[in-house]
Amino acid sequence: MFEAEREIEWGECDAMGIVFYPSFFKWMDATFHAFTRSEGFDQSSLIQDNDLAGTPLVDAGCRFHRPGRFYDRLTIQVSVTKLGRSSLSLAYRFNIAGSVIAEGHEVRAFVVQKNGTVGKADIPPAIRKKLEKHHV
Amino acid sequence: MFEAEREIEWGECDAMGIVFYPSFFKWMDATFHAFTRSEGFDQSSLIQDNDLAGTPLVDAGCRFHRPGRFYDRLTIQVSVTKLGRSSLSLAYRFNIAGSVIAEGHEVRAFVVQKNGTVGKADIPPAIRKKLEKHHV
Amino acid sequence: MFEAEREIEWGECDAMGIVFYPSFFKWMDATFHAFTRSEGFDQSSLIQDNDLAGTPLVDAGCRFHRPGRFYDRLTIQVSVTKLGRSSLSLAYRFNIAGSVIAEGHEVRAFVVQKNGTVGKADIPPAIRKKLEKHHV
Amino acid sequence: MFEAEREIEWGECDAMGIVFYPSFFKWMDATFHAFTRSEGFDQSSLIQDNDLAGTPLVDAGCRFHRPGRFYDRLTIQVSVTKLGRSSLSLAYRFNIAGSVIAEGHEVRAFVVQKNGTVGKADIPPAIRKKLEKHHV
Repeated sequence: MFEAEREIEWGECDAMGIVFYPSFFKWMDATFHAFTRSEGFDQSSLIQDNDLAGTPLVDAGCRFHRPGRFYDRLTIQVSVTKLGRSSLSLAYRFNIAGSVIAEGHEVRAFVVQKNGTVGKADIPPAIRKKLEKHHV
Repeated sequence: MFEAEREIEWGECDAMGIVFYPSFFKWMDATFHAFTRSEGFDQSSLIQDNDLAGTPLVDAGCRFHRPGRFYDRLTIQVSVTKLGRSSLSLAYRFNIAGSVIAEGHEVRAFVVQKNGTVGKADIPPAIRKKLEKHHV
Repeated sequence: MFEAEREIEWGECDAMGIVFYPSFFKWMDATFHAFTRSEGFDQSSLIQDNDLAGTPLVDAGCRFHRPGRFYDRLTIQVSVTKLGRSSLSLAYRFNIAGSVIAEGHEVRAFVVQKNGTVGKADIPPAIRKKLEKHHV
Repeated sequence: MFEAEREIEWGECDAMGIVFYPSFFKWMDATFHAFTRSEGFDQSSLIQDNDLAGTPLVDAGCRFHRPGRFYDRLTIQVSVTKLGRSSLSLAYRFNIAGSVIAEGHEVRAFVVQKNGTVGKADIPPAIRKKLEKHHV
């Protein structure tokens, strides 16, 4: 399971002193990039080596159990929950001091640009293999 | 149905030239505030007049149908889908040029601060009445 | 003098309830785009019609006189203070209820992409003419 | 000299694939908090132990030499350039692979809240001592 760490920043919190909730989605996206990079691919290589146009979102969501506060140390765990022909589902767990404060998910599509429009693309086999290792 | 308008900003888009998806959640939050203000209450009045500690998120999600691009004009519609004792469910529709590009939701709790901890609070009757008008 | 209006959002404020200061720069950038669009050009047309690679920042700054708070109505005024061969200096004034709360500036360069690197480009004459009208 | 490291995130870049410039100010603020925390104080302790109302910005600026791109590894150095009675000037240097891509500054005031308004406060002696070590 891939794990990322970050500290909640002052500017990521609102006037109640708790995380402004869109930050959780920003963190999921950042963790996705770090996760793929730990497996040797990223948006640049998808575009340059695989002729893809990235992995845009189809769906995203989050359930919030407890608020996070500035200076809290976050551990974010990501796992693959579904690996379709061209779509990828990911689960995220946000922990502070060993307790889960939020659980999120993303569904992403692998897409290709053809004739000015964007269409679904098969997940390249080499990338599928890397993602399968994180399938739970 | 309450409606807000905004233009997608350059800084809200990513390297693919499409909306960086956490922005959709930022827009839902901003639309929620505008919606409550159009009904005569906001975070400040909830705190000062109702002894509440705000309306933190319990759950949020969004399905993305088509990407938005910088300079696109967004119309965001919000409606109340469920009105519990202390929780409020909202549906959001994001439109560009009359076509729905994304659909989101938020579940918010009305909370009160007592003895240093945050607990659920009944939605004040006057506010419930205002929210009921937007129930679909 | 070009003028933009916006409401300070809940998510743009920090735990002290005042604007998280990088937001002022975000607003300058958004106002710059709105300003150029009011004059009939934008990043898309600069790239497509003028073979430019945008107007990246050379320098930016802001002096903060009074804090802004969520729900405050901001009026942002922009004027051109210097129009070089390839660079453009802009002054921004942030007003709440008729009083100036902050004053900022941007220096932007018109650039072109040649052989993989980015170099200075002359401001196209038609655009220079439009900018000159706002020179103070 | 205090140094912070971070990776430029996908969501911090714009449609040209380079850093959306307000991010540099966000990073200065985050580095300021990390810097004070490395010296044993932060916004929470300033408020609780010193009866202060934080360290709001008086002035901020940045000169941009070269663009940063997503996945670039940033090293941010901060030093104290002026230590007034109640104000603090800081210089920031942003490095990628050993070369300076941007140089910024912040001027912050130590403030106290009295009778509903915010006024300047003397920098507490213990904190002044910690800051002096970073004076260049």
